[in-house]
Amino acid sequence: MARVTSEIGPLVIIGTGLIGASIGCALTRAGCQVYLRDLLPSHMVVAAGRGAGLIEPVAPDEVTMVIVAVPPRSVAPTVAAALGEFPQAVVTDVASVKAEIEAELAAGGTDISRYIGGHPMAGSHHTGPLTAASELFVDRTWVLTPRAQTPGWVHDRARSVVALTRARVVEMDAGTHDRAVAEISHVPQIISSLAAAMLADAPQSSLKLAGQGVRDLTRIAASDVSLWGQIIGANRGPVLSQLMALRNDLDHLIRKFDQESAIIDVLTRGNQGVRALPSKRAKSREELVAVVVKIPDTPGSLARLVNAITETGINIEDLSIEHDLTEEVGYLSVNVAVERADGLRDMLTARGWA
Amino acid sequence: MARVTSEIGPLVIIGTGLIGASIGCALTRAGCQVYLRDLLPSHMVVAAGRGAGLIEPVAPDEVTMVIVAVPPRSVAPTVAAALGEFPQAVVTDVASVKAEIEAELAAGGTDISRYIGGHPMAGSHHTGPLTAASELFVDRTWVLTPRAQTPGWVHDRARSVVALTRARVVEMDAGTHDRAVAEISHVPQIISSLAAAMLADAPQSSLKLAGQGVRDLTRIAASDVSLWGQIIGANRGPVLSQLMALRNDLDHLIRKFDQESAIIDVLTRGNQGVRALPSKRAKSREELVAVVVKIPDTPGSLARLVNAITETGINIEDLSIEHDLTEEVGYLSVNVAVERADGLRDMLTARGWA
Repeated sequence: MARVTSEIGPLVIIGTGLIGASIGCALTRAGCQVYLRDLLPSHMVVAAGRGAGLIEPVAPDEVTMVIVAVPPRSVAPTVAAALGEFPQAVVTDVASVKAEIEAELAAGGTDISRYIGGHPMAGSHHTGPLTAASELFVDRTWVLTPRAQTPGWVHDRARSVVALTRARVVEMDAGTHDRAVAEISHVPQIISSLAAAMLADAPQSSLKLAGQGVRDLTRIAASDVSLWGQIIGANRGPVLSQLMALRNDLDHLIRKFDQESAIIDVLTRGNQGVRALPSKRAKSREELVAVVVKIPDTPGSLARLVNAITETGINIEDLSIEHDLTEEVGYLSVNVAVERADGLRDMLTARGWA
Repeated sequence: MARVTSEIGPLVIIGTGLIGASIGCALTRAGCQVYLRDLLPSHMVVAAGRGAGLIEPVAPDEVTMVIVAVPPRSVAPTVAAALGEFPQAVVTDVASVKAEIEAELAAGGTDISRYIGGHPMAGSHHTGPLTAASELFVDRTWVLTPRAQTPGWVHDRARSVVALTRARVVEMDAGTHDRAVAEISHVPQIISSLAAAMLADAPQSSLKLAGQGVRDLTRIAASDVSLWGQIIGANRGPVLSQLMALRNDLDHLIRKFDQESAIIDVLTRGNQGVRALPSKRAKSREELVAVVVKIPDTPGSLARLVNAITETGINIEDLSIEHDLTEEVGYLSVNVAVERADGLRDMLTARGWA
């Protein structure tokens, strides 16, 4: 890895929030010389403290790559400025929407042959460099959006740098990317927000019956409003056409709601949609059974429980913890292969787990 | 507990799918004499084998309580027949929608003074008695829907029996219940199905970018089509009025989609809705930080990791496992209090976890 990085030379990261700082940490750990820039000196200091890079001047001519990780609305002007300031550098960005940035740069008359769009699909509920982590991108998808005219050396350099973060590079043009993120991210965000918005007016008698289903449905509705307003606002075309398709489906269901076949049809197509998502594992959900165990919510009890399970040699395919509203206990739900579930249940009961 | 149960006398469970069989297991374990009935003898045999009760004749006059756990559409006629066959018994059911059953019974001229509606809010992706478990209802909500005219002794007996399953009894009238489950279960089910249905037609280039957000949104869209068709079909009124409210919100967003304020407004109300859900814990999500650790997906490694974490005395507030599509590894995401995250990260790194 050191051989590859020595060829890459100094890099500049502009914007040291969670993503920028995490990229800095990953590239620094991979042996790169990373220089940080941010309008907020406090962010930059925290990022440097977490190992994201150096706060020092750098010779512009020597910079081989610039990664722009500023808020969506500032990306295009920052990219344009970076292309001017660093005449040898490939410039990329990390914004979630790509076509509008290309259009904005083209409209500004910028020569964008050294620019290649990027979108690392990683992040968290947290923003800011405090939770930056060099592992944030490991095995995550990082989309690059070369144009037909993008020179090979630009493309190659971007791929090499991204590979150092251990992300998986996926390539498509900006328009295909924007349609894709509308479908699997932006429209789902709006749907989750619309669903959650209905709960804001629901009476307590309803809310106290809420279970895991509605919580899963509305989890991403807790996302950062300002960031998502910018992301969705930058991808209006693809998002709007899909919202109109959703309205058609909803209209159709409402018109035919007295016929059970219309309800069945929506549920059936929903089943198909879930199956269309690439499965995370060869083993399908149907072959797994959940075993639910009560755990006192104190340090140590979870470890004892997981020990007890793994001592049986059973591989835990998936697990989750639920906390009880009123008691200081949690429930561990463990998915195991169906043929092992009974044995696990008997063993746990024998050892006194509920 | 034995003292209470001895007063209750023989119970009959009609329908031995997952819910009926699990109730049988819970009541049998609590010391009750439970008699099973099912149109499918194979179900009944499996249920009895799992400890749900006896397959024997019972003297109808001695039966104190009948629990009807048949598919939604068969509930009302089965309740009516049970009220006739067991003249001393309180009869309850476990269907997810209540007002229609009362109306159907009333329309049939049945005297329903000994009937009290019930809805245990527990279940799983699995159906059938094979995964029945006496703990299914522990600390789950079990709604009872007494009418103003319900005699006190009927109400008391239903409460006593439900308490033996260790569920939490919540009481409300049938109409309030049906509105509540429309809001927090049936409409979320439809929204999830509509969202997933859009994915059924999406190109592979989109689907391969799918992350956890869209998976959470569409998780319940994998639910059983026939069962949910019946559930939603039985609660058309409350569901339809909320679907029309959803359409209004969606229409409004589409009309104003060129204004960022309309997008911001939906996202903001989504945030409010998530906050309106009763929080599972006093500690809010904001005070927790996710630490992501790579774990080889083999028996033992998860236990070693959880051990390492709990040895630090840090309490794990929440955790989840993600599997990688291409490699045999998983990632454990652990939520811990923000002030403990750095220490945990340093400790894990020092011990060689990634």
